[in-house]
Amino acid sequence: MGTTGLWLIGARGSVATTAITGLLALRSKAVPATACVSAQPEFADLGLPDWDEIQVGGHDIADISLDKRAELLSEAGVIPHRLLDAARPALSEVDTEIRPGYHPATHSGSQADAARRLADDIGSFAERHGLEQVVVVNVSSTEPVFPGLPEHGALKALEAAMAVPGRTVLPPSSVAAYAAMRADCPFVDFTPSLGIRLPALEELARRQRLPYAGSDGKTGETLVRSVLAPMFASRSLDVRSWAGTNLLGGGDGLTLADAEHAGSKLESKGRGLATLLGSEVTAPLHIDNVPDLGEQKIAWDHVSFEGFLGVRMSLQFTWSGYDSTLAAPLVLDLARFVAKAHEAGQSGPLGSLAFFFKDPVGSREHRLAEQYAALRDWAGTL
Amino acid sequence: MGTTGLWLIGARGSVATTAITGLLALRSKAVPATACVSAQPEFADLGLPDWDEIQVGGHDIADISLDKRAELLSEAGVIPHRLLDAARPALSEVDTEIRPGYHPATHSGSQADAARRLADDIGSFAERHGLEQVVVVNVSSTEPVFPGLPEHGALKALEAAMAVPGRTVLPPSSVAAYAAMRADCPFVDFTPSLGIRLPALEELARRQRLPYAGSDGKTGETLVRSVLAPMFASRSLDVRSWAGTNLLGGGDGLTLADAEHAGSKLESKGRGLATLLGSEVTAPLHIDNVPDLGEQKIAWDHVSFEGFLGVRMSLQFTWSGYDSTLAAPLVLDLARFVAKAHEAGQSGPLGSLAFFFKDPVGSREHRLAEQYAALRDWAGTL
Amino acid sequence: MGTTGLWLIGARGSVATTAITGLLALRSKAVPATACVSAQPEFADLGLPDWDEIQVGGHDIADISLDKRAELLSEAGVIPHRLLDAARPALSEVDTEIRPGYHPATHSGSQADAARRLADDIGSFAERHGLEQVVVVNVSSTEPVFPGLPEHGALKALEAAMAVPGRTVLPPSSVAAYAAMRADCPFVDFTPSLGIRLPALEELARRQRLPYAGSDGKTGETLVRSVLAPMFASRSLDVRSWAGTNLLGGGDGLTLADAEHAGSKLESKGRGLATLLGSEVTAPLHIDNVPDLGEQKIAWDHVSFEGFLGVRMSLQFTWSGYDSTLAAPLVLDLARFVAKAHEAGQSGPLGSLAFFFKDPVGSREHRLAEQYAALRDWAGTL
Amino acid sequence: MGTTGLWLIGARGSVATTAITGLLALRSKAVPATACVSAQPEFADLGLPDWDEIQVGGHDIADISLDKRAELLSEAGVIPHRLLDAARPALSEVDTEIRPGYHPATHSGSQADAARRLADDIGSFAERHGLEQVVVVNVSSTEPVFPGLPEHGALKALEAAMAVPGRTVLPPSSVAAYAAMRADCPFVDFTPSLGIRLPALEELARRQRLPYAGSDGKTGETLVRSVLAPMFASRSLDVRSWAGTNLLGGGDGLTLADAEHAGSKLESKGRGLATLLGSEVTAPLHIDNVPDLGEQKIAWDHVSFEGFLGVRMSLQFTWSGYDSTLAAPLVLDLARFVAKAHEAGQSGPLGSLAFFFKDPVGSREHRLAEQYAALRDWAGTL
Repeated sequence: MGTTGLWLIGARGSVATTAITGLLALRSKAVPATACVSAQPEFADLGLPDWDEIQVGGHDIADISLDKRAELLSEAGVIPHRLLDAARPALSEVDTEIRPGYHPATHSGSQADAARRLADDIGSFAERHGLEQVVVVNVSSTEPVFPGLPEHGALKALEAAMAVPGRTVLPPSSVAAYAAMRADCPFVDFTPSLGIRLPALEELARRQRLPYAGSDGKTGETLVRSVLAPMFASRSLDVRSWAGTNLLGGGDGLTLADAEHAGSKLESKGRGLATLLGSEVTAPLHIDNVPDLGEQKIAWDHVSFEGFLGVRMSLQFTWSGYDSTLAAPLVLDLARFVAKAHEAGQSGPLGSLAFFFKDPVGSREHRLAEQYAALRDWAGTL
Repeated sequence: MGTTGLWLIGARGSVATTAITGLLALRSKAVPATACVSAQPEFADLGLPDWDEIQVGGHDIADISLDKRAELLSEAGVIPHRLLDAARPALSEVDTEIRPGYHPATHSGSQADAARRLADDIGSFAERHGLEQVVVVNVSSTEPVFPGLPEHGALKALEAAMAVPGRTVLPPSSVAAYAAMRADCPFVDFTPSLGIRLPALEELARRQRLPYAGSDGKTGETLVRSVLAPMFASRSLDVRSWAGTNLLGGGDGLTLADAEHAGSKLESKGRGLATLLGSEVTAPLHIDNVPDLGEQKIAWDHVSFEGFLGVRMSLQFTWSGYDSTLAAPLVLDLARFVAKAHEAGQSGPLGSLAFFFKDPVGSREHRLAEQYAALRDWAGTL
Repeated sequence: MGTTGLWLIGARGSVATTAITGLLALRSKAVPATACVSAQPEFADLGLPDWDEIQVGGHDIADISLDKRAELLSEAGVIPHRLLDAARPALSEVDTEIRPGYHPATHSGSQADAARRLADDIGSFAERHGLEQVVVVNVSSTEPVFPGLPEHGALKALEAAMAVPGRTVLPPSSVAAYAAMRADCPFVDFTPSLGIRLPALEELARRQRLPYAGSDGKTGETLVRSVLAPMFASRSLDVRSWAGTNLLGGGDGLTLADAEHAGSKLESKGRGLATLLGSEVTAPLHIDNVPDLGEQKIAWDHVSFEGFLGVRMSLQFTWSGYDSTLAAPLVLDLARFVAKAHEAGQSGPLGSLAFFFKDPVGSREHRLAEQYAALRDWAGTL
Repeated sequence: MGTTGLWLIGARGSVATTAITGLLALRSKAVPATACVSAQPEFADLGLPDWDEIQVGGHDIADISLDKRAELLSEAGVIPHRLLDAARPALSEVDTEIRPGYHPATHSGSQADAARRLADDIGSFAERHGLEQVVVVNVSSTEPVFPGLPEHGALKALEAAMAVPGRTVLPPSSVAAYAAMRADCPFVDFTPSLGIRLPALEELARRQRLPYAGSDGKTGETLVRSVLAPMFASRSLDVRSWAGTNLLGGGDGLTLADAEHAGSKLESKGRGLATLLGSEVTAPLHIDNVPDLGEQKIAWDHVSFEGFLGVRMSLQFTWSGYDSTLAAPLVLDLARFVAKAHEAGQSGPLGSLAFFFKDPVGSREHRLAEQYAALRDWAGTL
C-alpha cells in the first residue's frame, strides 16, 4: 500500500501519545511488535501499511506538547526512558500536524462550521503528505451520555440542525465522525462515546461508501471476561453473579468515575456480559478514581457460579495493567486493518473487527475466540 | 439408544460417588443438569443415552460403602443433604454392582489372571442387565509414574509378560484398560495415569475396533488456563511467567502432593501451557496437601506478561472449587458421548473429546473454545 | 454471677439466631468456644456469666420463628446440621420470650408509649426469670441515617417531644436504647445505627449510672484493616489509596447496598481508616447486594503504598466470611463483659470494649492489638 | 553523636546499593524519609546519627561497580531515575571504600587469616574517617545451611580450628561476624545465614561487650503475617492452614529457590508462624525463582480458619513489593539504632529490635504491634 494517514481525535492524550511514540519505535526497530495483533504471521501477506507507511496527525483541545505528555507517560511507566529520548525529535514533528479540536464550550458559530473546519484540517493533511487515504480514530476522553434527538434520525434533518448557529445537536465525537466522512475518511471509535452510532451518520457512511468500526476498545477487564464467560457457558456452569471493581488513576479515572460519564462505559461493559452468558446476572460494576495509581488500571472481578448438584464455587481475578499500553497497539492495528478494508472497497460497519471492541458495531459476537476466528477469516478475504 | 453400562474404576471414590448420586438425582429430576455439557440443547437430537438408560457398576479396592462415602461428601459440601437422603436406597443397589479392584500389592498370580477376572466382572454386569454396551471410565487415584518397559511396545510381547506369575508389567490403570478392551468395552481415562497410552494397548484398541478417550479430566486451574492463554496469544501479549499453586485436601491432596505421584499430574499440566502459549515459559507449579480443605481445591495463578513497548503487566486468579463437583458431570458426559461414538462405529482415540481433558489423546488442540467447536462439529457427524 | 439476661433487639435476625443457637450448643458442650474472646484463658477467673447462666429474650418486628430462621441459616452454611437438630426444642422455648419490636410504620401513639411498652417487656422478662440484670444488645438491621434534631440535645426536651402522639423524634434503635435504660439495663449497639449516641441519651445513661458500649461490630474487612493499617504506619510506609469492595447477600446486602442506608456503615468504616493511618487517603468503598451469596460476605481491599525512595507497591486481600458467624460470638462476649462491668458498678461508655467495634464509643483507639491490650488491662481491674 | 561507620557485607548487592543511594538522597533532602522507622517523631530526640553522620564502606566478592548496580536497580524500578543521576559521583566515592569479601572458594590460607584481613579492612576504614564506631551489617546472599560442628561450642576451640590452613569451620557470614567483633564492632545479621548464632561467637560478643542484632529482615510476607496471625489469635479464630507461595526474580530468586538454600529461609519463616498462632498448622511454603519479575517479589498467602460453630472461612492476600526497597531503609534504621545502643553501652543480643526480623535473636515475640511497642520502650531508655 502507499502511504496511509492516521488522524487521531485526542491526539495529545495518553493513548494517542503512546501509539505515536510506539509507532516511531517500531519504525526504527527499537522494539518488537509485542501486542500488535496486525503484526502476527497470519496477517503478513495481507499488504497492510508498514510502520513507516503511516503518517500521523490529529485534533486535540489540549495544548500540552506531545513531548511533554510522553515524558509524563515515561514517568508513569508507560514509555521506557530509552524510547522517549530517541523519539523526541520525531514527536515534535508530529506535533506540528495537530490542529485544535472541537469543543462546544469554546466554539462559536454552527456545528456545520465546526465540522467543515475539521474536515478541511484532515484534507490539508492528506494533501500535504500525498496520502492515498486517512483513517480517523477517536481516542479522546469518554463523553457524558448525549440525549437522543429527532434530528439524529436522518441525514438531511441533521444537517439542517447543524447549520443553526449556536445549536448543539451532536456531541464532539459525532461531529468528528461527521467531519471524517465529509473528508472521505473511514472512522473508528475507540471510545464508548456516541460517535457514528446515529441513523443519520450511518446513512452518511452508506452514501460515501465508507467503512467504519467501533466502539470502545476492549483492553482489560472486559477482555478477560470475553474468554471466561464463554468458558462457564460451554461447561454449562451456571454463573449467578459477576461483580467488578475498577480502580483507575489518570484523567480517565476522573472522567469515568463521574457518575454521568461512567454511564456510557458501564452500559457497554454490562451489555457484553449478559450476551456472553446467555442471560442476565447480578453484575454490580464500579469505576473508582484513584489518582495515585497514575496510568495503572486495576480490576478485580468476583464470579460466583453453581456447578453439579447446585454446589457453589467461585473464581476471582485481579488484572493489573496500563490502559494506554493496552490501547495503543490496538489503535495501530485498527488503522492498518481499516485502511486495508477501505482500499479493498468495503463499506459500512466492519463487524469482523469485533475482536477489538467492548461494544462492537456490526456484530453480536462477544466471545473473544470466535471474534479472533472471524478476524482471521475476514482478513483472508481482503 | 438402549441401556448403556457405565463401569467405573475407582467406583467408591469421591468423583464416582458424586457422579452416581448425581445420576440418581438427575433421573428423578430433583436437580437441573447444571454442568452437564451433554445436556446442552446442541446435543439434544443426538440420541445420547438418557439418565435412566445408564446402569452403573465398577471396581474398587476400597470397601467403604457408597452410602458412607456419599455421607462424607455431603458433610464436605459436595452433595446437598436433601439429595443424599433421597439417594440412599438406590446407592445401596449400585453398591451391589461393585467388585474388588486390582492392586498389585494384594494380588497373587499373573496380571493376565487379574485382567481376565476384571473382564469377567464387566461381562457379567453387561449380561445381568442386558446392556448393549458398557463404557469403562477410570476415576481412581492418580498412580505414581510407571517406568517404560520394552514389553509395552507390542501387544504380543505385553501379553507374554503379563502371563508371568508375579510380574508387574503394567500399572493398575493399564490393567484396567486392557481388561476393558478384552471385555469389548470403550475405555476413558479421567486420570493422568498411564492407562491406555502404550503402543501395545493402542494396538489392542485398533484390533478390537474400540474407541477410547483421555486423559486427565480438565476440571479447574487448567480449564481456566485453556481460555486465558489463548487470550494472551491472540492479542500478541508476551507471557513471561505463569506460576501456579494448588491447595488440595482429601485423598487427592495426599496422593498428588507426594512428589512422585505429582510427577504425572504436573507434567500433564505443563505440557498444555507451553502448547497454548506457543513457547516455553517459566512456569513453577505446586500441589500442596492441605487436609483441612477437605474436598475443596484452591488454585492461585500469577501471570506476568509484557505488552506494547515491553511494559510489564500481570493477571492473577484464584479458583475455588470442589474437585468432585467439577469432575462428576464430565464423567457422565463422557460415558454418553463415548457410548454414542461406539454405537456409531468409531474407533481409536477420540480427539474430538479433547474439550474434557488436560492431556488429550488424539488431539494437539488445548484451546478450550476450539475444543468446544470441535466437539460440536464431531457431534454433528454422529 | 447469678443468672444474666441477654435481650436482643432483632432477636429473629441472622446474627441473633446464630448467637442463640450457638449459646445452646456451647451449653451442651457440643462445640468448643471457637471465636469466643471471653472464653480465652485470660478471662477465665473474671467470674463472667457461664453459658448456662445466660437467659435469652428479645424484640423483633419480624414473625418468622427462630426455628425456621435457624433452618435457613443451616442451609446457608452458618449453622451445622447436627447442631440445628439438637437445638430445635430449646429454640422454640426462646421463641416464646420474643416480643413484637417497635417500628414507626406500624405504631400509633407516641414514642413515649412505645418506649414504655418495650421497657415493660424487658422488665417482665427479668422478673419472670429472676434475673439480676439484663444486657440489651441491638442486632437489628442497619437504619437509614436519622437527621439531627434540637430535641436530641437534652433529656428533658427529648422526653417532651417523645410524648407528642404521632411524632417520630427518634429512630427505632434510639427508642430501644431509651427503653433499655428506662428498664435499668446496660445497652450495647452492635449496629451502626444511631442508638444511644445522642447527648440526651448519654445524659440518661449517666443519671441511671448505666454502662453502654458500641457501635458497629467489627467482624470482617474492618477487622483486617485494623491490623494492616497500623502495620503500614509503624513501618512508615506511606499508604496512598485503600479501595474496598464488599459483596453481601442476605437481608444485609439489600439493606446496606441501598445508598441511604449504606451512608451510616460507610461512614463508620471510613472514620476508622483515617484514624489508623494518621491522615486522609483516597478510600473508595462500595457495598453491593449480591443475593446469590446468601449469608456470605466477600471483601476485596486494594492498598497502594509508597516505600523507600517513593517506590510504589501494593497489598490486596480477599476476605471470605459469614457475617453472622463472625458477629454472633462477639454478641455473646459483649453480653458477658458488659454484665460484669455493670455488676462491678461501671457506668458510661465502655471504651475498653473498642476491640469489638468499628466505631467505638469512649475510645479513639482503632488499632486492634492496642484494643486487645486495653481489653485485657480493663478486665484485670474488674 | 559523632560520625558513625556503616560497614556492609555484600556492599555491591541490591539491598546495599539501594541503602547507599537512598542514604545519599536523604542527605541531600531529595526524598522524604518514607519507610525509615528511625525517622519517626518518636525517635527524634534520641540522638541517633544523622544521615550525613553515616559513612559507608563494606566487603563484597562481586566486582560490579555500585554505579552499574544502581543503574540496573533503576531499570528494575527500585531507584528513580532522577535520584540515580544525582547520586553517581557520590556512589563512585563509596565504591572506593569497598574491599574484596571472603569466600572459601577463592581463599587460600586459614579462616583465621581471612578474618584478620577482614577486621583490618574495617579498622583502616574507621581510622581513615575518624569514626567513633562502625556497625557491621550483613546483607549478602543467603547461604546454604552450614552443618553444626563441635568447635562451634566454645571460642577457644573455634579459634584453634580457624587457625588450621584450608579448614572451613565457619560459613562466610560467621567469619564476617567474627571479624566484626575482632574489630570491636557491633554486628547485625539481616540475612537468615548462620552469622553470629553460635555459642562460640556469642561468647566473643559477651567478652567484647558488643551488642548484636538479627536475623533475617522482616520485609514482606512475614511482615503481613506478623499482624494477621495475632488478629486471628486475639479473636480466638482457629487457623487450620496457612499456605504461602513466593515468586522472586533477581539473584535472590535463584539463591532461595534452590532447595538447600531455601532451607534456612523457609525454616525461619515457619518458626514465626507457629509461635504467632500458638500451635502448629499445616503451612506449606514455596519460594520460586521467576527471573522475569526482576527485583519484584510477589507473595500469595491463603489462610483457612474456623469460626463460631466450626464454620470454615478464608483470607487470602497478595503482596507485591520490591525486596530491596523494603529492606534498604531497615538497614539504615538498624545501623542508627545499633550505633546508639553501642554508644549507650548495651551489649549482647538486642531483643528489642525484634520488630525488624523474621527470626529475632534475644526475643520470642513475633507479633508486630508488640515488637513495635518494645522498640519504643527500649528507645526511651537509651
